[in-house]
Amino acid sequence: MIKTVSYENGILTILDQSKLPEKVEYLRCHTPEEVADAILDLKVRGAPLIGVTAAYALALGMVNYHGNNKIEYFEKIYNLLASTRPTAVNLFWAINRIKKIFLENSSLDNTKLANILINEVNKMFKEDINTNKLIGEHGEKLLNLNSKVLTICNAGALATCGYGTALGVIRTGFRENKIKNVWACETRPVLQGSRLTVWELLEDNIPVTLITDSMAAYIMSLEKVDAVIVGADRIAANGDTANKIGTYSLAIAAHYHSIPFYVAAPTSTIDLTLTSGTLIPIEQRNADEIRQLANYPITHQDVEVFNPSFDVTPNEFITAIICEKGIIKKPFKQEIINFMGEEE
Amino acid sequence: MIKTVSYENGILTILDQSKLPEKVEYLRCHTPEEVADAILDLKVRGAPLIGVTAAYALALGMVNYHGNNKIEYFEKIYNLLASTRPTAVNLFWAINRIKKIFLENSSLDNTKLANILINEVNKMFKEDINTNKLIGEHGEKLLNLNSKVLTICNAGALATCGYGTALGVIRTGFRENKIKNVWACETRPVLQGSRLTVWELLEDNIPVTLITDSMAAYIMSLEKVDAVIVGADRIAANGDTANKIGTYSLAIAAHYHSIPFYVAAPTSTIDLTLTSGTLIPIEQRNADEIRQLANYPITHQDVEVFNPSFDVTPNEFITAIICEKGIIKKPFKQEIINFMGEEE
Repeated sequence: MIKTVSYENGILTILDQSKLPEKVEYLRCHTPEEVADAILDLKVRGAPLIGVTAAYALALGMVNYHGNNKIEYFEKIYNLLASTRPTAVNLFWAINRIKKIFLENSSLDNTKLANILINEVNKMFKEDINTNKLIGEHGEKLLNLNSKVLTICNAGALATCGYGTALGVIRTGFRENKIKNVWACETRPVLQGSRLTVWELLEDNIPVTLITDSMAAYIMSLEKVDAVIVGADRIAANGDTANKIGTYSLAIAAHYHSIPFYVAAPTSTIDLTLTSGTLIPIEQRNADEIRQLANYPITHQDVEVFNPSFDVTPNEFITAIICEKGIIKKPFKQEIINFMGEEE
Repeated sequence: MIKTVSYENGILTILDQSKLPEKVEYLRCHTPEEVADAILDLKVRGAPLIGVTAAYALALGMVNYHGNNKIEYFEKIYNLLASTRPTAVNLFWAINRIKKIFLENSSLDNTKLANILINEVNKMFKEDINTNKLIGEHGEKLLNLNSKVLTICNAGALATCGYGTALGVIRTGFRENKIKNVWACETRPVLQGSRLTVWELLEDNIPVTLITDSMAAYIMSLEKVDAVIVGADRIAANGDTANKIGTYSLAIAAHYHSIPFYVAAPTSTIDLTLTSGTLIPIEQRNADEIRQLANYPITHQDVEVFNPSFDVTPNEFITAIICEKGIIKKPFKQEIINFMGEEE
């Protein structure tokens, strides 16, 4: 299994996903700043993976810190990482978890403290894989034998520490003969579908057919889709879900065609502080992601562009949320409280 | 105004739209075979323009034909052109119009006959521009002042002999202060939106913002779309409309957001022989259109691909059809008969 991120001896090694599938290249990061740049440039992406990678960046910063003002330094690198990407809440969940451990142990000497932080992130890494396997086990039960499922973006091993969320359900489902074919939406503008999801599924010999995002509704009308399964970047307390741009369009179409629409995500994606999806901040990205493709200009270089990286799918279009604790059904508002309450 | 196609002295000159917006290049075609290849390769595209171009190809064939078996030769080039693209019915409408004139005059000598055919296509060329201007005049009345409209693909001057259908409505609307902004969907896989519609609108100083196809529903949810206006490749007798892949998805989203959805097309796009859209043949195109972009590979080169060039929007999602004779409203089945009947 390919490793998306790994830490050893003061160096964080990151799979550079912007080069896939052409090249399998790794970045060796020595500082939190290098990691923050990798997150900004989508070299590392996917809500759960961004969270763990940012947590590693904090720990890495402390490993290499030899000054006398560690609280101030930690605050600085915490703010840097928090500013990289606004939508995925796993980022904040993960760096806050490390911040808490940091503050609890800030009286220790630098080396001891750094070791505690590294151990904590290593634990988070393992937890994430375990979480995904549980999501896979719960989720596959929702699928009928030989289902044709549709997904967008990459909510796979590459978006996590391993196994994947939406693709975790598909992986477990495939093993249980639940998956006949996966429709992978190419996912413009950054093409995580054609570049990453296709790559992952072909590596695992799971049958995949690539389509443009615009074809999904038409394929649904041909009765070639039994379920839609997507990941999530942030889920509000009422179940409204922010995910890759295009998800909302799929959800409306699935609803119209009476096709179940599932969100697969760890509970760390749920943000109980937001009562509805309209409060989720939506990241706007660089216009050149749409004006160019692989540095090749595909339109006028001065045309106005709107490039939101995510959209919000209202809870009414979501059939169920698949998390590591089981299946969250409607009414989401109450059920999410029930599921999250168990955590305490 | 740029000329998409023009005939002079045995040569048909075609604007090579596959090179736009990078280069404005013309193809000089001497034979119907060269024209057929240009149609197949999307160097010339857009339902009304394909029709007139194919009609020119037939006339061009007869201009350069000096044999003794003109009926057999005509049949051969007719079949060649008919086989280029299956979905747009304007192609068949146009070549059948030329076939009729050909048969009526087949006893004349080659030169006289060829002149009659060239004159007929020149007439069709002028009619098409006039038709589009009428579509523009009728259509703009449906828009409120300062509307934000959304379109897909290119149903513009480049898709016709000039002025455009959907973009004809937008052009006339802009002159009448009806257009505040145009959302242009980039239109994967061939990017007619980013390459052609953006180019056309910027040339005319009409404000345009480029988006990926997947963003349209989200932008509708932000209340930034007042109307959707699209072209058509074939309209069945009940109003069901085949148009560029992705149109169906837009129509479902517009319906959900209570946004009017208009189809702008000449009556030559209406196929009374088909009772519903499910009978419209849908062209499947080459997988590399999705696997590559400008010859740059963006995914595994052996991944399975589904690449329908069009989809069908059921009449229930269409608010009105704008044609050169006026606005066709619901119930479409009866109203289309009324509109087409006037033709006789």
